Amino acid sequence: MKASIVTIGDEILIGQIVDTNSAYLAKELDKLGFDVIEIITVSDKRETIEAVLQKQLSIVDLVIITGGLGPTKDDVTKNVFCDFFGDTLVEDERVLNHVSEMLERLFKRPLSPINRQQALVPSKANVLFNKVGTAPGMLMCKENTAFISLPGVPFEMKTIFKDEVVPFIEKTFQKSFNLHKTIITYGLGESLLAELLEEWEDNLPQNIKLAYLPSAGSVRLRLSIQGDSKEFLEQVVDNQLKMLPQTVIPYVRAYEDLSLGEIVIRELENREKTISFAESCTGGKLSTMFNEKPGSSSYFKGGIVTYSTQSKIDLLGVNQATIDKYSVVSEKVAIEMAMKAKERFKSDYAIATTGNAGPTKGDSPAEIGTVYIGIATPEKVFAKKYQFGQPREKVINSAVSKGLDLIYNEILEK
Amino acid sequence: MKASIVTIGDEILIGQIVDTNSAYLAKELDKLGFDVIEIITVSDKRETIEAVLQKQLSIVDLVIITGGLGPTKDDVTKNVFCDFFGDTLVEDERVLNHVSEMLERLFKRPLSPINRQQALVPSKANVLFNKVGTAPGMLMCKENTAFISLPGVPFEMKTIFKDEVVPFIEKTFQKSFNLHKTIITYGLGESLLAELLEEWEDNLPQNIKLAYLPSAGSVRLRLSIQGDSKEFLEQVVDNQLKMLPQTVIPYVRAYEDLSLGEIVIRELENREKTISFAESCTGGKLSTMFNEKPGSSSYFKGGIVTYSTQSKIDLLGVNQATIDKYSVVSEKVAIEMAMKAKERFKSDYAIATTGNAGPTKGDSPAEIGTVYIGIATPEKVFAKKYQFGQPREKVINSAVSKGLDLIYNEILEK
Repeated sequence: MKASIVTIGDEILIGQIVDTNSAYLAKELDKLGFDVIEIITVSDKRETIEAVLQKQLSIVDLVIITGGLGPTKDDVTKNVFCDFFGDTLVEDERVLNHVSEMLERLFKRPLSPINRQQALVPSKANVLFNKVGTAPGMLMCKENTAFISLPGVPFEMKTIFKDEVVPFIEKTFQKSFNLHKTIITYGLGESLLAELLEEWEDNLPQNIKLAYLPSAGSVRLRLSIQGDSKEFLEQVVDNQLKMLPQTVIPYVRAYEDLSLGEIVIRELENREKTISFAESCTGGKLSTMFNEKPGSSSYFKGGIVTYSTQSKIDLLGVNQATIDKYSVVSEKVAIEMAMKAKERFKSDYAIATTGNAGPTKGDSPAEIGTVYIGIATPEKVFAKKYQFGQPREKVINSAVSKGLDLIYNEILEK
Repeated sequence: MKASIVTIGDEILIGQIVDTNSAYLAKELDKLGFDVIEIITVSDKRETIEAVLQKQLSIVDLVIITGGLGPTKDDVTKNVFCDFFGDTLVEDERVLNHVSEMLERLFKRPLSPINRQQALVPSKANVLFNKVGTAPGMLMCKENTAFISLPGVPFEMKTIFKDEVVPFIEKTFQKSFNLHKTIITYGLGESLLAELLEEWEDNLPQNIKLAYLPSAGSVRLRLSIQGDSKEFLEQVVDNQLKMLPQTVIPYVRAYEDLSLGEIVIRELENREKTISFAESCTGGKLSTMFNEKPGSSSYFKGGIVTYSTQSKIDLLGVNQATIDKYSVVSEKVAIEMAMKAKERFKSDYAIATTGNAGPTKGDSPAEIGTVYIGIATPEKVFAKKYQFGQPREKVINSAVSKGLDLIYNEILEK
């Protein structure tokens, strides 16, 4: 089964926003067994949208379109969509009542002509109800291709997808499987990893596709395979994983698609342990990562972003003397930061970062790219020095990954 | 001048990663006067890449391709690219020396056969030197279309784009301008804003395109216009802005494309004032946002993520008695958090958040979606209660936006 994703919006074509909707839809469609063959972004102009819809006909089984359904004049998608099927727009009573009710509840306002237009849908469309917003989704078919139009606001799109699109897909399309097995490695460069895996890779069955995805010190290896029986596919892939060279095993951090942060969280949860952070050059990235999931309070005690030198003293309790003697970007300060975070947040583990991410030098003479990472565990505290080069983005991401890998190894040693 | 962007990689089509490269390239090409007409993501298979390159011929003036240039076997783009121009791969000496030097410096390793392949380029290509990585970019032309292939690692792609692609474009293509003027509003829903702007919108000159971009309480209004003279275009747009209805003006936060965070930063910088954060339900998002830019230490004193109730007491110094009496999600606790953050970080302003982002209830009986935002200024401290509904993502983003808008109004009142 083939699918394509079409996102509509000049804001994407001029780079004003990043298209995260496509990534969500691609992942969900893949899970449902679809082969997403193309993701296309086009302008919200009539001719362009028509052309891209036309192009999908009979090529794919399913097209998901997002965006262009707002109440304002720049949003033309609903009209084009309707015309594409030779249909006319009619008012949908359920949608109209829902829009009125939302306006009343949220803004204490009556229905305006602009709002009323949101209740218009093609007469032959299956309306996909949007319980969290005012623009409904629409489903229509033509020449063996199903077209689904969804609003562009991410949480509205996701809600309709879960509530309405998934049940439709499960009812309509034959079940097949895309199995992806991802192995997370840390500490080997992409080409060295590829050399160590060369023989193993050459002996992989033809129907398994292997991909390398490098980022900030970590390489994700993805094995992909398609078929009808999930159990059989898993067995095929697992057999190959058992033959993974011994030289690579020490660098494997997980046999599923988790970020380094998620791997640390899993190990903390398994042991009922907690963590906290004192972040300088990583500026809150570790804290944000550990707060993303519901229920994070069971392993995440808190974090402190001591970006300025003074706040390291005032808030975290690092000694002024240590900073004066060794400078703020130093092994001793990283150690004190980790120790103080662990102590103050009453956590089992702590990670501290202090460094210079660039592009210019800060409160310390340290070279750009220099980062000290402090690690506190129930038994010990230490810090290590790294040189992550440039630019700023790479330094910050590399420091986050390295900090997570250091703490991972400490947690596992217990 | 028309351009298209092609990103290659199954990791995008299965939703394993979000394609941020396209947004960067779209923005930069737009700034250089190109009309980006399409962004396409396809699989890293020979036939698919060939087909997409073929499709661009004579349709656009410039195609930028990213991804698929790694040293491993799954990366086929370089070979397909070379064949598309009927060329053969040859070893580039400068690239070879650079790859050897990087391996020696970073990994203390000699050149392996896999690394050596990275120095291969089509014999007729203009090599775009990659000073921060091992995969070079390539530029080749066919039938009046310039094709540029860049690696997919974001910081490598960006570095080559800045160093090599921009000078090529400036030298080769005629200068034209895309002018986008973005007005940031906060506090009006999209449809209410559209109603207030209806007459003004109807009277806009035909060559100005208006778009509405809503997100988390804020609506960005974008006016776009194309032409040869930047000064003239600016005048045309500015004339229209002067006629913006008086009813809308109180909701305007900026006349340029800034996030609410950037608007607050600008106001702080203008007044040489500083800010700090005590974040509970927003989990570090405010701190991360204020740490993104170099030089942030001049306005950002630090932040503390007190996700657990206990850390609000231990680290921030909120009174146990206040929490016991009013619960952790309460006006009084938000006030104490803001006050303590301001005090401890020695900042002029502070924002505090405490709430329940869901999906389940936490340490407090507060309804899901309830958030108290505490604001401390040089003169006063207060907190307000909000109900941001569901899901979690919306609650967190709405709390961040609202906190920023509250502090913006306080800073401006001074």
